[in-house]
Amino acid sequence: MTEERTLTDKLKDRIGQDVSLKGYIDTIRILGGITFVVLRDRKGTVQVVSDNPSADLSKLKKYDIVQLKGKVRGENRARSGHEVSAEFFEVLSSPKEQYPLSVTSKSQEKLETILKYRPISIRNKKIRDSFVLQQSLAQSFRNYLLSQDFTEIFTPKIVPQVAESGSDLFHLKYFENDAFLTQSPQFYKQMLVGSGLERVFEIGHVYRAEQHNTARHLNEYVSMDLEMGFIDSFSDLMDLEEDMLKYIFGNVANDYPKILEEFGVKNPQFKKIPRIPLLEMKEILQSKYRKKFENGKDIDSEGEKLATKYVQEQFGSDLVFLTHYPLENRPFYAMPSENKSLTDSFDLIFNGLEITTGGQRIHDYDQLLTSMLNSGINPENCKGYLMAFKYGMPPHGGMAIGLERLTMKLLNLQNVREASLFPRDRTRYSP
Amino acid sequence: MTEERTLTDKLKDRIGQDVSLKGYIDTIRILGGITFVVLRDRKGTVQVVSDNPSADLSKLKKYDIVQLKGKVRGENRARSGHEVSAEFFEVLSSPKEQYPLSVTSKSQEKLETILKYRPISIRNKKIRDSFVLQQSLAQSFRNYLLSQDFTEIFTPKIVPQVAESGSDLFHLKYFENDAFLTQSPQFYKQMLVGSGLERVFEIGHVYRAEQHNTARHLNEYVSMDLEMGFIDSFSDLMDLEEDMLKYIFGNVANDYPKILEEFGVKNPQFKKIPRIPLLEMKEILQSKYRKKFENGKDIDSEGEKLATKYVQEQFGSDLVFLTHYPLENRPFYAMPSENKSLTDSFDLIFNGLEITTGGQRIHDYDQLLTSMLNSGINPENCKGYLMAFKYGMPPHGGMAIGLERLTMKLLNLQNVREASLFPRDRTRYSP
Repeated sequence: MTEERTLTDKLKDRIGQDVSLKGYIDTIRILGGITFVVLRDRKGTVQVVSDNPSADLSKLKKYDIVQLKGKVRGENRARSGHEVSAEFFEVLSSPKEQYPLSVTSKSQEKLETILKYRPISIRNKKIRDSFVLQQSLAQSFRNYLLSQDFTEIFTPKIVPQVAESGSDLFHLKYFENDAFLTQSPQFYKQMLVGSGLERVFEIGHVYRAEQHNTARHLNEYVSMDLEMGFIDSFSDLMDLEEDMLKYIFGNVANDYPKILEEFGVKNPQFKKIPRIPLLEMKEILQSKYRKKFENGKDIDSEGEKLATKYVQEQFGSDLVFLTHYPLENRPFYAMPSENKSLTDSFDLIFNGLEITTGGQRIHDYDQLLTSMLNSGINPENCKGYLMAFKYGMPPHGGMAIGLERLTMKLLNLQNVREASLFPRDRTRYSP
Repeated sequence: MTEERTLTDKLKDRIGQDVSLKGYIDTIRILGGITFVVLRDRKGTVQVVSDNPSADLSKLKKYDIVQLKGKVRGENRARSGHEVSAEFFEVLSSPKEQYPLSVTSKSQEKLETILKYRPISIRNKKIRDSFVLQQSLAQSFRNYLLSQDFTEIFTPKIVPQVAESGSDLFHLKYFENDAFLTQSPQFYKQMLVGSGLERVFEIGHVYRAEQHNTARHLNEYVSMDLEMGFIDSFSDLMDLEEDMLKYIFGNVANDYPKILEEFGVKNPQFKKIPRIPLLEMKEILQSKYRKKFENGKDIDSEGEKLATKYVQEQFGSDLVFLTHYPLENRPFYAMPSENKSLTDSFDLIFNGLEITTGGQRIHDYDQLLTSMLNSGINPENCKGYLMAFKYGMPPHGGMAIGLERLTMKLLNLQNVREASLFPRDRTRYSP
């Protein structure tokens, strides 16, 4: 039985014809002694009936994987207006026992259960759809940047040096040597800006051996990184991200309206994303919501939520750029602002969660070296990185967007683990 | 000076107009007391002259990074038919000392030198171009599969279990636990075929802690992986790869003819890729070239080269599928052929080097479990993977293409390290 397979979305053009279908049994109903099965393939579903004794549908079980021959016929009582009358079927594979959790669209399984049985819970169409949408975000990110003359790069994840800080690194034995899993392609994308490519991006995994186990942290995640040369100021980067997000969200609205509906969400609202200095935002939140900031100069998780509330009310925007982070909150390569205690940097907060960190970088060799030493980083550990600057680097800057966080906020998921196919967290590294 | 930048490829439309350029100084020539500099940006080059005292070009040094204002004018003696007369320039960044190696297009630096100074050697246009072409291979792979209904996936690289074998794994401390860097997304792509996505692909890093240090091995490389459900046989996979490679190579010929020319190579020749059983090929090579096969049932590196020679002579093809590898040469999940000592599997040899391994996989739970036990693998270590099969899996198969190897053979590079931006090999893990 190797006739060409017909996918369910093509059946409406095949009424009256013989077809061969493949897929799994999504539902079985028995009405008045007649068995109705719904077969699902990657394109959708079709109702299947049979009055042929050699295709006794009552023998089928839910989630059986089958191939099936039959004739398409118009049927007004079927939702699609047609159904398939089976003449023959063969079960290709069958569950050994009942599914360990519900995978119907309305299932209300706990996240722990969903993740424990991930190879099966992903068979829930709604969950699957969230990852179909997720990959489209990555593709839109890529396509937008390609249209802007960026070059895609693939840089190593096994690294000797330390991009951000010395802590929170996964350690690795690399034959006789000690190495680490990269926290960011930062050093590499900067070196490649200097190569003459000028504009580069990478979509790849990064690693943080952070101890905290919150709803918004993963220890391995997909970072959508970009870096561009010859910027005039870090405003160029925010302009780019704003334009890119319009493109990305526009594609989602066009291509996946049903998935947005399935998750009960609308596309983010914004015309122009407000750009507010961090310290100003903290003052606003203090005076407006009596928010207290305890430790450090950064905004905390509650502050990110309040900042969103503020810009939603004030500007009708679900997104806000917080700008000019204090020097001590940013890595050594951050470009100081005119006010030397601040940096030409930004975070993008989307519906209460930071999804981007970006900014202009120091491009002068001596300035970078001094900043590195001031941060307590040994230049000997960053020789390759420094080499690029020693031989000249254009002014440049860049950013990174966390793919799982972007997906999480867009679909209004409650936990970032829902936006990772096989999440790695403080205690989970399997399956 | 924040006027909008004009890229060099747009200058021909701006003759007589003032422009602002940014880039680096590619060459400086002094002829009859006049300084001619060539400025390069990501789009190309332009000749710059000046008779303006406030733009004294003789002060510029090679590889200075500059921004420059001037007027475009027609100039028949310039290769492009136009040049820029500078009125003002500013050096944005300047090499601290002379480049440590030559980066002109005809430079003949040793590979060791090139890799030692990678952040600078990548400033060689020819080297940079090889990576522009490389990323286009990945994009064509992706675009082809998207057009065939595949879904892009992002799966973890930190894994508990062992896909291929127990050896050659990079070991990692994952908080309190022991984990590994993945050798392949094999298990994950199979689980996701079973999710209902049916067809999935991933472009991502994989890791092999292999001790050998040859011209064709990397310890971290980019694997372009795909897996598809509901295949009729493993011929479907070879059909797909053949069609995909035609698409990929066709795009290269259309989009990057100058890069192929720069490397002195032509696109691979093939109409239909011959499919020859491995054991038959070994007999052919034995009788035709007196090739001796010493260890194992696989073909060795010299055999791969001879196999290419044979199919080039016999079929005018630079590629050949070797099929039906013996059971003991394939991992436990390989589908046995009708002849039980062989498998429904293939390698693709491209100009003397294996660039793809693929095949049909076992989809029956009991058969998989038995095969796993026969291979000495503990099913306890693969519980997540087995879960997918326990609850039903369609017939399926897949393959992986090594991106660096594909680039290497296409551009006729002599060492796979040349096809990796920052290669990781037996001794190298920096920069």
